[in-house]
Amino acid sequence: MRRKDFLQEPVKHIKINGKLSVDQLIQQFSNAGSFGAGRLSTACDIYERMIRDRKCTVFLALAGAMVPAGMRSLITDLIREQLIDVIVSTGANMVHDAIEALGGHHYKGHWAVDDYLLYKYHIYRIYDIFVPEEDFTRLDYRLAEIYDEIASKCTGRTLSSKEFAWELGKRLDDPDSILRAAYETRVPIFLPAVRDSEFGFIHWLHASREKCQNPLTVDAFKDVPEIVEICKQSPKNGMIVIGGGVPRNTVQSAALASKKGMDYAVIITMDRPETGGLSGSTLAETVSWGKVKGGADKVMVFADAIIIFPIIVASVIERLGEEFRREPYLKREKIETAIGGV
Amino acid sequence: MRRKDFLQEPVKHIKINGKLSVDQLIQQFSNAGSFGAGRLSTACDIYERMIRDRKCTVFLALAGAMVPAGMRSLITDLIREQLIDVIVSTGANMVHDAIEALGGHHYKGHWAVDDYLLYKYHIYRIYDIFVPEEDFTRLDYRLAEIYDEIASKCTGRTLSSKEFAWELGKRLDDPDSILRAAYETRVPIFLPAVRDSEFGFIHWLHASREKCQNPLTVDAFKDVPEIVEICKQSPKNGMIVIGGGVPRNTVQSAALASKKGMDYAVIITMDRPETGGLSGSTLAETVSWGKVKGGADKVMVFADAIIIFPIIVASVIERLGEEFRREPYLKREKIETAIGGV
Amino acid sequence: MRRKDFLQEPVKHIKINGKLSVDQLIQQFSNAGSFGAGRLSTACDIYERMIRDRKCTVFLALAGAMVPAGMRSLITDLIREQLIDVIVSTGANMVHDAIEALGGHHYKGHWAVDDYLLYKYHIYRIYDIFVPEEDFTRLDYRLAEIYDEIASKCTGRTLSSKEFAWELGKRLDDPDSILRAAYETRVPIFLPAVRDSEFGFIHWLHASREKCQNPLTVDAFKDVPEIVEICKQSPKNGMIVIGGGVPRNTVQSAALASKKGMDYAVIITMDRPETGGLSGSTLAETVSWGKVKGGADKVMVFADAIIIFPIIVASVIERLGEEFRREPYLKREKIETAIGGV
Amino acid sequence: MRRKDFLQEPVKHIKINGKLSVDQLIQQFSNAGSFGAGRLSTACDIYERMIRDRKCTVFLALAGAMVPAGMRSLITDLIREQLIDVIVSTGANMVHDAIEALGGHHYKGHWAVDDYLLYKYHIYRIYDIFVPEEDFTRLDYRLAEIYDEIASKCTGRTLSSKEFAWELGKRLDDPDSILRAAYETRVPIFLPAVRDSEFGFIHWLHASREKCQNPLTVDAFKDVPEIVEICKQSPKNGMIVIGGGVPRNTVQSAALASKKGMDYAVIITMDRPETGGLSGSTLAETVSWGKVKGGADKVMVFADAIIIFPIIVASVIERLGEEFRREPYLKREKIETAIGGV
Repeated sequence: MRRKDFLQEPVKHIKINGKLSVDQLIQQFSNAGSFGAGRLSTACDIYERMIRDRKCTVFLALAGAMVPAGMRSLITDLIREQLIDVIVSTGANMVHDAIEALGGHHYKGHWAVDDYLLYKYHIYRIYDIFVPEEDFTRLDYRLAEIYDEIASKCTGRTLSSKEFAWELGKRLDDPDSILRAAYETRVPIFLPAVRDSEFGFIHWLHASREKCQNPLTVDAFKDVPEIVEICKQSPKNGMIVIGGGVPRNTVQSAALASKKGMDYAVIITMDRPETGGLSGSTLAETVSWGKVKGGADKVMVFADAIIIFPIIVASVIERLGEEFRREPYLKREKIETAIGGV
Repeated sequence: MRRKDFLQEPVKHIKINGKLSVDQLIQQFSNAGSFGAGRLSTACDIYERMIRDRKCTVFLALAGAMVPAGMRSLITDLIREQLIDVIVSTGANMVHDAIEALGGHHYKGHWAVDDYLLYKYHIYRIYDIFVPEEDFTRLDYRLAEIYDEIASKCTGRTLSSKEFAWELGKRLDDPDSILRAAYETRVPIFLPAVRDSEFGFIHWLHASREKCQNPLTVDAFKDVPEIVEICKQSPKNGMIVIGGGVPRNTVQSAALASKKGMDYAVIITMDRPETGGLSGSTLAETVSWGKVKGGADKVMVFADAIIIFPIIVASVIERLGEEFRREPYLKREKIETAIGGV
Repeated sequence: MRRKDFLQEPVKHIKINGKLSVDQLIQQFSNAGSFGAGRLSTACDIYERMIRDRKCTVFLALAGAMVPAGMRSLITDLIREQLIDVIVSTGANMVHDAIEALGGHHYKGHWAVDDYLLYKYHIYRIYDIFVPEEDFTRLDYRLAEIYDEIASKCTGRTLSSKEFAWELGKRLDDPDSILRAAYETRVPIFLPAVRDSEFGFIHWLHASREKCQNPLTVDAFKDVPEIVEICKQSPKNGMIVIGGGVPRNTVQSAALASKKGMDYAVIITMDRPETGGLSGSTLAETVSWGKVKGGADKVMVFADAIIIFPIIVASVIERLGEEFRREPYLKREKIETAIGGV
Repeated sequence: MRRKDFLQEPVKHIKINGKLSVDQLIQQFSNAGSFGAGRLSTACDIYERMIRDRKCTVFLALAGAMVPAGMRSLITDLIREQLIDVIVSTGANMVHDAIEALGGHHYKGHWAVDDYLLYKYHIYRIYDIFVPEEDFTRLDYRLAEIYDEIASKCTGRTLSSKEFAWELGKRLDDPDSILRAAYETRVPIFLPAVRDSEFGFIHWLHASREKCQNPLTVDAFKDVPEIVEICKQSPKNGMIVIGGGVPRNTVQSAALASKKGMDYAVIITMDRPETGGLSGSTLAETVSWGKVKGGADKVMVFADAIIIFPIIVASVIERLGEEFRREPYLKREKIETAIGGV
């Protein structure tokens, strides 16, 4: 590169002259193009391109307490609007979705409280959110019944985590529920660590009842070929990763195992690479594995996802406009054929 | 507190049904009220209240490479719109303001480059921004002349960092310049670590010229009573802190020394408290010192300021509306009388 | 509290007069007692107390690429010395243990490399560690055979992740292997997200072979009652958490479900609480859930575990001395009776 | 590079067989060579090389509340042992040094306390350290007298921050004091943001007394040529940076202005590069400026300095052994001749 190639485009300073729409602000960030503002505007561009690319399947990897914190409707809407095609989540996010579907709530609280008092009051804290124990208890008993029902229907058959998620969604009567919306629209939800959540303890409750003859069995490995198959059948794949952990790793591994490599990648995280954990690993590192293509359209935003993801969605929805209707490449029926339905 | 007091207000999930203005999105964050989204919406509320409180003087503490990254016009506009009353900055931010005032630029670059090649090309990197050496050189020579001029005008007198900043602003002919806008509108800019920036090396250049008889002298301690006096004369004080370091400490110390304590505080930082540095210290900690009042309206947002501060400004400007005109409590002339002008 | 209660013990400054043992340095940190040094010395004290408490079962939660980075022998030794009683790990750490058990290696590399070149060379990068693809391939084929063998032995039976781990350990002929050491000494290793690792793809390889009639089945939920039972049978429980994610959550949930609550807790992480994820959540927050007791002996160290955990181990081993022999409360046979062996 | 060049040296796993000295543990970290352990062992190697390189001048940049937290004696000893040649510090660290020199203390406290109660009790909190107001008050009055004395001695002369620091050290009668040790041994201490600390308010106290005719004047820019001259006269320069902010920037800028560039660099910080601040900027970035040489021996350790710096010192002191006596290249008298004494 010659010297002048480095000095092509001056930073244009952000101007806020009055009321701005979210995407107008993002355009200002794009003009500036630096630090987090540059990364965020790039993330919006990439998500827009994923959606407009008719050959791309969009994966959402979901870690962190995003559903308790207020992202439930947003994800449900993205599913129903077909702006997300596959979800890989922690169990906990779906547990909290089910809590609300069964009439429970998450309450605005505070991070500086007497946690021992909360303990005595049977209130659980998630940073600045409070959840009353009774909402978990209601969940436990209702879901244990649902497990009974699923088990009696599926006797002798083991489920994948995706089938399990759809079976739950089928039985949650709440249009705002992520699980319900995914079931209705045939968007696969994978829960690769389903055991590590209240779903695990509900299983125990269910399995240890006297009347339970054949407890529901979720096969830990059964969803591996399912998610890999999706990557394989899609000409292109894109991922939006919220947080890290198992959901990020599962999506990336599917891209690796299918020998496709992601074509688009947006990662929102506060983790950093130097301690070597996957959650903070760079997109460059994923290229060495083949999880993300060397030439992929990709960016990491180092920020709190509960701020950033809604901004990205708002910016992209504004760009797409009211009339935009997306037709996913992998039609929902096709997914069902490939990897099975409920 | 009784149990039910903890369970008052359920999280309302974020909804994005179409195009949203920035403040409409912030209202969604307020509905959710959790994690960074809750903090960010609170920060907007507090800045709005600072501005609407007719007795409040608003301090902006400015660290990090915010001016190179695209925040120059934003700050200039806040000064001109009287939405910021006092600035405490690193020297570097004002150096970069002057670079642009003298025709230089910051260029959009990349963080993953061959830095040794940049070195050979005489291009300086600030994360993903490039600055050509010639823009620094032009600054050095032009400012050395300005120093000569100031020195000859102020012979036998030492300047405070605020007087120094205004003297510079007076001589920078660029309406978009922060220094110029501050000079014109009599907004004090304090540079408590002025020596630790190109301003220091320019001084050396200036002072070591043969013709220089009486070099310009900036008295390290002279701005202490100036900034304290401002806090003292204001019935209320509020601060917005971008980053940490010397600017945050200087503003907080003025609140302490004036025995006022801040009434409002918004801090945007990525630092964390556990390593004990001031930059990451909590607002609770500042209360023990009397730097911020126990009952102050206060919040920290843990995020990249180049994203967050423009969002706050956009949200608050939208709330204030087109007709809003703010009259600062400490009229500009009053500041000049109290702490001296140029 | 009276004023003087806050001013009891002055910081004693760290002195390094010559060669120090690790624990002598930790004693200096204890004298200073501040910031990370205070937290680290407290962590050493707590681990020592866990070990000396004859009624305590010690859980190690293991996330992050700790085995590739050099912590393999350390963990194996802790198992063999009975200084750790139960392990909950990511799948990946055990995958990398198996890679070395089968003759593979992790290589010292660098974080600033051309990842596309690595990709073309079939070398995978984990921050500054390189792993050649052939070591994964060797693992895949050898483990697929092991899966066949386990499947044929366990026909019609589903395994828990712990049983799966022991079955592997039984077939890995390497005394330095964590899996082997755990199998030999009957230390349970739980892998609650076993699917999210190379173990998942090996399962696919194994299950899709023509000859495979009855693929090995790991029941996602089967280890829930196993780990809860361990907590329940122990008069006291303690946890050392390296990183966060599923391992931390699984251990904490076992303490909750058993209604015991941890009596001791040391967490080493770089995550922070404000974004609401479990990995960065405070120990205070865990108290609201009953995962950790209000009066527990507990500390978080905000640091890179590959530095901190070996320091803690070295300090505690020095304190225990050569003659010390620990007898875990839950004798290994007892664990086998309670939760089954291989 | 050929493929095999990437796969040269396998990670050797950390072994802790019994009591280890600090440097024996660091050798284990060197064997593993990964993540923070690799960086920390490299930092020890680099500091050792700086010291053994007879042509190298060693700069220590000191930010964060390191002196209150227990690093006072360590730094004093490094000065007296001639293992550090130049210090650049925040004002606050030297304020806290002076507090102890005048009989005050820092107390072990806690981070989770009622800060409003502390406020009412006149106790200041620095994360988990408490400082009683009376220790500041004693400092204020005693130092104001010292300022009077310096002013009367230096009438008509402005001081540099370094001269100011030595004048203080001369008058603090405590062999454990950093300021005292630096004065006695002629180690320059630069305080480029001296105003931003209690020293600023003491100046105000001093200058506003009736009897004060000619207040002490510290020239903000006077230390610029002093520190640059030191870099220039040293054949080689090395820096150890604790934290970031003004001290890091000042040291790096001296290397730039002297056109030398650092030959050795160790940075200990928790900051990250992506938000663009200098404190988290990479060593690669410094190369583009010429602050650090492209071929320099350099490493960043991402960790809490109160843990890491004592480990580095202990490891290096162990390596140097009892008989080692270092003779700095820039003899103390030479510094005095070059940049003036007191």
